[in-house]
Amino acid sequence: MKNRIPLNSRSNVLGIDVGGTNTVFSIVAEDGTMAVTGTVKTQDYPTAEELFHAIKTIVSTWDHSLVQTLQGVGIGVPNGNYYTGEVLAPPNLLWSDIHLVPFIQSLFDLQCVITNDANAAALGEMYFGQARNMKHFIALTLGTGLGSGLVVNGKVVYGHDGLAGELGHLTVVPEGRVCGCGRRGCLETYVSAPGLVRTATEIGWLPTSGSATARAVFDAAQEGDSTAREAFNITGMTLGQAMANMVAVLSPEAIILSGGLAQAGESLLEPAQAALEDHVMRSFRGKTRFLLSALDNESIAVQGAAALIYQEHRTPV
Amino acid sequence: MKNRIPLNSRSNVLGIDVGGTNTVFSIVAEDGTMAVTGTVKTQDYPTAEELFHAIKTIVSTWDHSLVQTLQGVGIGVPNGNYYTGEVLAPPNLLWSDIHLVPFIQSLFDLQCVITNDANAAALGEMYFGQARNMKHFIALTLGTGLGSGLVVNGKVVYGHDGLAGELGHLTVVPEGRVCGCGRRGCLETYVSAPGLVRTATEIGWLPTSGSATARAVFDAAQEGDSTAREAFNITGMTLGQAMANMVAVLSPEAIILSGGLAQAGESLLEPAQAALEDHVMRSFRGKTRFLLSALDNESIAVQGAAALIYQEHRTPV
Repeated sequence: MKNRIPLNSRSNVLGIDVGGTNTVFSIVAEDGTMAVTGTVKTQDYPTAEELFHAIKTIVSTWDHSLVQTLQGVGIGVPNGNYYTGEVLAPPNLLWSDIHLVPFIQSLFDLQCVITNDANAAALGEMYFGQARNMKHFIALTLGTGLGSGLVVNGKVVYGHDGLAGELGHLTVVPEGRVCGCGRRGCLETYVSAPGLVRTATEIGWLPTSGSATARAVFDAAQEGDSTAREAFNITGMTLGQAMANMVAVLSPEAIILSGGLAQAGESLLEPAQAALEDHVMRSFRGKTRFLLSALDNESIAVQGAAALIYQEHRTPV
Repeated sequence: MKNRIPLNSRSNVLGIDVGGTNTVFSIVAEDGTMAVTGTVKTQDYPTAEELFHAIKTIVSTWDHSLVQTLQGVGIGVPNGNYYTGEVLAPPNLLWSDIHLVPFIQSLFDLQCVITNDANAAALGEMYFGQARNMKHFIALTLGTGLGSGLVVNGKVVYGHDGLAGELGHLTVVPEGRVCGCGRRGCLETYVSAPGLVRTATEIGWLPTSGSATARAVFDAAQEGDSTAREAFNITGMTLGQAMANMVAVLSPEAIILSGGLAQAGESLLEPAQAALEDHVMRSFRGKTRFLLSALDNESIAVQGAAALIYQEHRTPV
């Protein structure tokens, strides 16, 4: 394995974002520039070993002068544990448990740092996105579920075991909707693409054609359907109210939204911000802003994964 | 003002804990030892300036060889802002807003660092108490209200404005009990000495003699009164359920209880721990312990206030 040497302006890192559907990987420069990017279907490879061997094969076909500048591999992966380097029982993946860091270090002959996908997105925001000048913020990824990365004092919050930052599993409705985690009333059962659809359906919305998707609710809301609009209002308000509690805990400068559902933009942001202001203590009013990610949903976690290597070399803030 | 010089083993700090009733101050060594301690009635002094002048007068009567070793003044005070050095609208004090740090630096000719009383208690636990080997924990002070100090990566969480860590004002019951903050359903309206008494009264407990105090509920529970016991169960469960959400956010190693109500010990701890385990996600089960503070309630915040100075000189963890 290469020694850890100070990165210079021509340093590059291989950033990898392992998603349930696609795994995206790219050579990322310290300014976030992605020189070359590849994608494979995650489910085409039944094991982690096969997936990363396939990535290595593709990377080896890339411009050698670029590949030779690589200083490390940063990986965002569901259940990736920053402390232990392990991935245990990753949701939506076929993998067995794996001690990923030593495997990657040996495969690529480079240092490797991993974290979970939501924390990678938070790092992407901190190094290259909306949070570039922030030391205290929350990044939420709204899609099939609700992922979160918390940043305090310029560092991702991992907790004592690497598992902190599970805001999707805050209980917001006692005895509420059943969640994939086996409990009830978790935030992500309300504030996620399926949560929005369920809320819309519960208040009487029906798709005019096709199936009931978050996209269909959004299109209906855009066309003036008041029930679809109300579904966004309820979803945004649920988010804002839950985040009012998080403001009392962490007092973040911003709550940054990315992921498919965040593409709804103001339909979600406006009721969320209003509910936040309604529910926070007076001393917190008007201080924490909901923001939309300015980064591309496909690249944010790849850039953030690469930042895992860059942060190891930077002076702590 | 003295230059900031590295502290040695014979260094001492003046730790001051400003409470609503008493202000306690002590010369605290780096190992937490309190060589000499003084107390004044906070309300005897209508302004901060008069209070600290009185403290200076008392300290000047102490052993000069000891006073001369002082390297700084650390102060825990309601609404004390670590970042700005200001104390704005402190609850239960008669003071006007004051920029406390420059005033103290000039008065004592020593460096000064301030924080709020709950954060000072958390520092006390981290440097001298139950959290000595922990980098991730929550300290709760249960008394008239519920104060909290959060520690992440070995540092107190202040948030972007110095106001983070207000767990007493987590909304736990929508439209619940009216809180002093002007909102409803805050945790401290249920989990605090008055909250316990209110719960006991609501479920039909009456004092056999004297007035309805937390102490009277405790004594009744000890004597086998089932309603009083149930009041502790409900209070502990409310605490445990709220902390299950905090575990999902911060994944702390422990939640440490101090303050008058914490003296109830197992009556509170047992239902709290049980409710925590019942409500956390599977991956967090059995990992976060409720602990009672081993420090004296009077000294914990004084020692923690002193630690404000010591931490400025230590290598960050």
